[in-house]
Amino acid sequence: MEQEKRTEIASLGEFGLIERLTKQIQLKNASSLKGVGDDAAVLDYQGKLALVTTDLLLEGVHFDLTYVPLKHLGYKSAVVNFSDIYAMNGIPRQITVSLGVSKRFSVENLEELYAGIQLACDIYGVDLVGGDTSASMTGLTISITCIGEGEPDKVVYRNGAKENDLICVSGDLGAAYMGLQLLEREKRIFAGESEFKPAFEGHEYLLERQLKPEARKDIVAELDKAGIVPTAMMDISDGLSSELLHICSQSHVGCRIYEDRIPIDYQTAAMAEEFNMNLVTAALNGGEDYELLFTVPLEKHDIVAAVPGVRVIGHMTKPELGCCMITRDDTEITLRAQGWNSLAEGE
Amino acid sequence: MEQEKRTEIASLGEFGLIERLTKQIQLKNASSLKGVGDDAAVLDYQGKLALVTTDLLLEGVHFDLTYVPLKHLGYKSAVVNFSDIYAMNGIPRQITVSLGVSKRFSVENLEELYAGIQLACDIYGVDLVGGDTSASMTGLTISITCIGEGEPDKVVYRNGAKENDLICVSGDLGAAYMGLQLLEREKRIFAGESEFKPAFEGHEYLLERQLKPEARKDIVAELDKAGIVPTAMMDISDGLSSELLHICSQSHVGCRIYEDRIPIDYQTAAMAEEFNMNLVTAALNGGEDYELLFTVPLEKHDIVAAVPGVRVIGHMTKPELGCCMITRDDTEITLRAQGWNSLAEGE
Repeated sequence: MEQEKRTEIASLGEFGLIERLTKQIQLKNASSLKGVGDDAAVLDYQGKLALVTTDLLLEGVHFDLTYVPLKHLGYKSAVVNFSDIYAMNGIPRQITVSLGVSKRFSVENLEELYAGIQLACDIYGVDLVGGDTSASMTGLTISITCIGEGEPDKVVYRNGAKENDLICVSGDLGAAYMGLQLLEREKRIFAGESEFKPAFEGHEYLLERQLKPEARKDIVAELDKAGIVPTAMMDISDGLSSELLHICSQSHVGCRIYEDRIPIDYQTAAMAEEFNMNLVTAALNGGEDYELLFTVPLEKHDIVAAVPGVRVIGHMTKPELGCCMITRDDTEITLRAQGWNSLAEGE
Repeated sequence: MEQEKRTEIASLGEFGLIERLTKQIQLKNASSLKGVGDDAAVLDYQGKLALVTTDLLLEGVHFDLTYVPLKHLGYKSAVVNFSDIYAMNGIPRQITVSLGVSKRFSVENLEELYAGIQLACDIYGVDLVGGDTSASMTGLTISITCIGEGEPDKVVYRNGAKENDLICVSGDLGAAYMGLQLLEREKRIFAGESEFKPAFEGHEYLLERQLKPEARKDIVAELDKAGIVPTAMMDISDGLSSELLHICSQSHVGCRIYEDRIPIDYQTAAMAEEFNMNLVTAALNGGEDYELLFTVPLEKHDIVAAVPGVRVIGHMTKPELGCCMITRDDTEITLRAQGWNSLAEGE
């Protein structure tokens, strides 16, 4: 957080700070009638459903500013919310951003954070329409709410998967988790040194997946183009296992996925080997991939298999068969929701 | 925070906690298609505008658990968001609640907090449709987003006030601020003692205004019944002065309000005398009253003056006349946005 210039937040006051952070905002969406500057934003969702999701990110729990640049943090904070809207088969349109900031942060720091949020908004076509900014006693708190639009007959829930439906995932899994392991290792190595300049060559993909993830807007668009409305969908933020168990539980089905079908990038595999970690565990339980997990009827196999970036990894079963993975040596392993549970860890 | 029973949050995990806190929720509004339990809530605002507001409340900055019971805190956290929706002349319909909680808090503590939120939701007819719960390193963080509905031709902004419009406020001002002063004084007296049992007789109204404020749903309904759509409206959270200056600035008008018209309860006056504080300063700059400040065309005078709980306190002027209060001895004092600025104070 070295800065050329440091303006104290107190020197602007709350309204001055909000004015400075939001003055460049231009509303892009027809549904954004009124953004920042009143008691509430005003949205027009005529003919569409409004989808609402929210995320709270706390310093020391969800992010570590030792290795997360503020601009990246802003970008990621916005994108993870967009991801939840895509997971409903919707399109994110607006966000509100609330910040709690301690005196450690300067106005320029917050401008960096906002620059990241704004960049994500620009890339994904989302309007920043409101928020709240206040002092905090300790560290940085970011609370983002995202509102998106869904077609009444195309919103996809977690509870619509049927027996025999195909289980599909986008992209690849476990990379964000391995990126986090790498950052944590380098942090330990550099502990106490003022300059954090670790060597990350060959691991760029893992770092990007951890520090600057993308939401799968493209997959939602491709599925729509292919005429596919998934029967159930979630984004993978807590790990494939955990999310799949959610869908199975809410849809009252069991599942079989196949270890050799789980998409994993070679950098993820190499890093797992270096760390002597079980690769499949990382792919099943590592969080923050923000890929889409969804189910489609069996008869859509050829269409969905042809969508770029989508892999069929298994199928739904009767509920009494439970939720299992078939390993490469044909063993059935029961899936467990190990997940990425911030309430249980690290306190 | 003494509890008969203490269940550690970690013993339930994130999903278990969310399940326990949200299992009794019943959706009441037709616009709430899907609440807690998916990637996003799904809302149907056909024919209406969606109003979105958000507030971030941080322990040690916005509330002090020494004297704020968790149930009251939950109630207030919800109500202050409803207030923002009423201030747009809308009706609050849904909220999302995100919590960051340290290990100091038990499941029972959070149930108390949720009981307060749920009580507010029940009284105001609002559905709790989502949120996020995670660990925090320090204290309690509450982020609430409220979504409300507005009729397309009846949403009221801050920028619609015209020259000669009447300035109106609901209820009375300064009581919440005096309640806070009282609580802070008693806290200092009881510092170090384990039981906080101060004597509050005769000040019940002030404490209620501070600890359990209400949003003016009734005023919005009364104005609607009287056929009045205000030209501009805000809720008074930062103090009358600050809010009035916002309306004047956004509406490009000046204003004159009259000291002897500002509604003040006798308990507020008595407390100000006891504290040797300027009563009008408390009424102008004390925050958290959550009353409505609004303007109506001059010709509505008789109708608006007949609405119970509404007081006409002045009128809008040409912008070049500035924003002033006329004191009891006929002096013009320029209004300043002293406000209740959490970013400038107490750090």
